[in-house]
Amino acid sequence: MFELLLTDSHSKARRGRLTTAHGVIQTPIFMPVGTQGTVKAVAPSELRELDAQIILGNTYHLFLRPGLDVIREFGGLHGFSRWDRPILTDSGGFQVFSLARLRKITDEGVHFQSHIDGAPCFIGPKEAMEIQAALGSDIAMLFDECPPYPCEYDYAARSLERTLLWAKRCKEVPTPGAKFGIVQGATFADLRRQSAEALVSMDFDGYAVGGVSVGEPEEEMLAAVENSEPYLPPGKARYAMGLGTPPQMVEMIARGIDMFDCVLPTRVARNGTAYTWGGTVNLKNACHTRAKGPIEEGCTCPACREFSRSYIRHLLKAEEILGLRLVTLHNLHFYLNLMATIRQALEAGAFSEFRQRFHARYSKVEAPPEE
Amino acid sequence: MFELLLTDSHSKARRGRLTTAHGVIQTPIFMPVGTQGTVKAVAPSELRELDAQIILGNTYHLFLRPGLDVIREFGGLHGFSRWDRPILTDSGGFQVFSLARLRKITDEGVHFQSHIDGAPCFIGPKEAMEIQAALGSDIAMLFDECPPYPCEYDYAARSLERTLLWAKRCKEVPTPGAKFGIVQGATFADLRRQSAEALVSMDFDGYAVGGVSVGEPEEEMLAAVENSEPYLPPGKARYAMGLGTPPQMVEMIARGIDMFDCVLPTRVARNGTAYTWGGTVNLKNACHTRAKGPIEEGCTCPACREFSRSYIRHLLKAEEILGLRLVTLHNLHFYLNLMATIRQALEAGAFSEFRQRFHARYSKVEAPPEE
Repeated sequence: MFELLLTDSHSKARRGRLTTAHGVIQTPIFMPVGTQGTVKAVAPSELRELDAQIILGNTYHLFLRPGLDVIREFGGLHGFSRWDRPILTDSGGFQVFSLARLRKITDEGVHFQSHIDGAPCFIGPKEAMEIQAALGSDIAMLFDECPPYPCEYDYAARSLERTLLWAKRCKEVPTPGAKFGIVQGATFADLRRQSAEALVSMDFDGYAVGGVSVGEPEEEMLAAVENSEPYLPPGKARYAMGLGTPPQMVEMIARGIDMFDCVLPTRVARNGTAYTWGGTVNLKNACHTRAKGPIEEGCTCPACREFSRSYIRHLLKAEEILGLRLVTLHNLHFYLNLMATIRQALEAGAFSEFRQRFHARYSKVEAPPEE
Repeated sequence: MFELLLTDSHSKARRGRLTTAHGVIQTPIFMPVGTQGTVKAVAPSELRELDAQIILGNTYHLFLRPGLDVIREFGGLHGFSRWDRPILTDSGGFQVFSLARLRKITDEGVHFQSHIDGAPCFIGPKEAMEIQAALGSDIAMLFDECPPYPCEYDYAARSLERTLLWAKRCKEVPTPGAKFGIVQGATFADLRRQSAEALVSMDFDGYAVGGVSVGEPEEEMLAAVENSEPYLPPGKARYAMGLGTPPQMVEMIARGIDMFDCVLPTRVARNGTAYTWGGTVNLKNACHTRAKGPIEEGCTCPACREFSRSYIRHLLKAEEILGLRLVTLHNLHFYLNLMATIRQALEAGAFSEFRQRFHARYSKVEAPPEE
C-alpha cells in the first residue's frame, strides 16, 4: 500500500504515496485531527476545499460517544461524519492513559472510567482493533501503552514488553484497512531499537513513532525518532504521532518521517494564534486593530482571500465563532500547504534548500501580547 | 424606495419590494441578526448561499467594539465584514436600555457605561444617526427610547414625547440610505396612534413598530401592531422589531408587516433547537440518537442536504462547533424559506390558505427533553 517514490540525497526525507480504500495519500502529509467525529469548527466540505487528504479520528472518544452501536448504523465513521476520504484512527491507548480515570493495566488491557460519565470501560488489544474495524478506519493503529515522560528504564522496558504482547494480539484481529505498529521505548535508544525490530519482524503495513509529544524536550523528541527510524524498512510509511510545530515537522521529515497529526493548528486557532511562514502571530494583539491586510500576504486560504486581520481580530475579541473558524481554516491551510510545498521541494531535489530557508525565516519569537 | 406590489384580499398581508444602494429586497422578509459584525457562527458566503437578502447590524455593539474609527477605515460595515448586500442598523436605543449600565436619560440623549469595559459613553439622536452613517447602513433606524414592559401610562407618554423630539433631530442628520421611524407608545392604543401619526407627518422612508418583544404577552405584541398599523401609509415598508416565532411572524404579516429581525433562529440553534414546519425540535433528545434522516425531510438547507440527525445530535452532545453551525444554518434557512413561501403564496393569491395550513401544522408542543 505504500510506495516510496524518492529519497532526498542530502537527508532522509522521502516522497511517497499511500493507497487506501478511500483514496491515495501523497506523503509527506499532515492529518488534521477530528477527535469526536469532526475536525473542530470545520465542515467536511471545507476540509475538501483545503485539500486535506486524510483526517484522524480518536478511537477512545468515539467509543465513548456516540458509541459503536450508533456508528455501526452508518456503516462506520465515513458514513456517520460524511467524510469520504481516508481516515486514520488512533488505537485509544494514548487517550486512555491521558484522559480516563482509575485505570488498571494488565496484560489483557486497560480498565478505566469514561471521562464523560464515569462509566466503567475496558479496552484491550482485541477490543481496540474491533473498535477501529467498526469505525471503518483506513489505517488502524495497534493498541499500545504510552509511557509518561519522564519514565524509569525498568518501567519503560516492562511497558514495551506488554505493548509487543498486545501487538501480536492486534495482528490477529481482522480490520478492513492497514495496520500500523507503534514504536515505543521512551527515551532509551536500546528499547527504541528493540521495539522497532520486534514490530518489523511482525510485518505491519506501516510504523509510527509513539511516546513523543508527551511533554519531553524537543531534543528528546528528535532523538526518539533518530533512535527508531534506522530500524524501520524504507518501503513502509513512517508516522510521528501527535506532532508538531512546523519546524519540528520539517526536522522530522529530514529524519525520514512521512506522516503527522497534531491538534496545534486547530487548538491555538481558537485562542487567536495563526501560523505564518514568519512564525506564529497572535491576532488579538492591538497592532492588528486597523490592519487591512490578510493574516499572511499571498496566502490562498479562505480566511486570507476574503478577510482583514482587523476584522478577524474584532471577531476574536468579541468571541464570535466566525473568528475561530477563520483562524482554524488558515492554520489547517498552513499545515497542509507546508506539506505540499515540501513534496514539491522533494520532487525538485531542493529539500535541503527549502529546509534552510524555512528555518531562517520561521521564528518562534513574537512580540508579546499587548492586551 | 418601497413599492407595494400587491395586498392580500383577505388580510392586510402585502407583497413589496424595497430598493437600496446594495440591492433589492423582496418583502415580506426576515433579516438575520449580525449583532457584532457577523451573524453568529455563520460566514457571509453561507448567508449568500441561504439567499439572505439583508442582515441587521447592532449600532450599540459596533460603536463600542471595534469602534467607528476602525469601521471608518474600511468605508463602513460592508467593507469591514465583507457582506455586500443590504444592511439595516438599529439605532442603539434598545440595546442601551437593555445592556448598558448606569444610564442617565435626558432630552439630549443617554449617558451610559459600556457593558464591555465600563467606559462612559453618550449617544443622542444626532450621534445615533452619525454612527449609522459611518456604518454605511442602507436602512438607519431613528434613535428612540424603548420603554419597558409593563409601563405606566404617564411614563409611556413622556417617553413618547422625548422619542418624537429625538425623531425631529434624527431627521436633520444626513445618512447615506433610508431612515425608518419607530412607533412607540407601549401598550396604549392612543399613544401608538399619536406616535404613528406624528412620525408619518415627518415623512420617513419606512416605519417600525418598536417596544414589542420586550417581555409582553403575545396578545399585547399583536395589539401593539394592530394599534399602530392603521396609521401608517400603505406605500412605505413596515417593520416589527425583534420578532418573532414563525407563527408570530405569519400573524404579523397578516396584520400588514413587511420586515422582521429576530435572534431566535440563531440563538436557539446554539442550544440544539431546530425549527421545522411541524414546530421546534430539540435535537439533543435521545430519540434522535440513531436517526438517519435529516432535521426535516425535504429541507434543502446545507445541514439537511448532507447530515443525519444522529450525527448532528452527537456534535451537539459533544459540544462541537460544527453542531451549532449546522443547526444555525438550518434555522436561518427555515426562517428565510418561510418568507419566500409566504411571498409565493401572496403572489398566488393563496395567503389565507397558507396561513391556515401553517397554523394547523405548526405546534409549539414538543416532547420534553429526555436527558
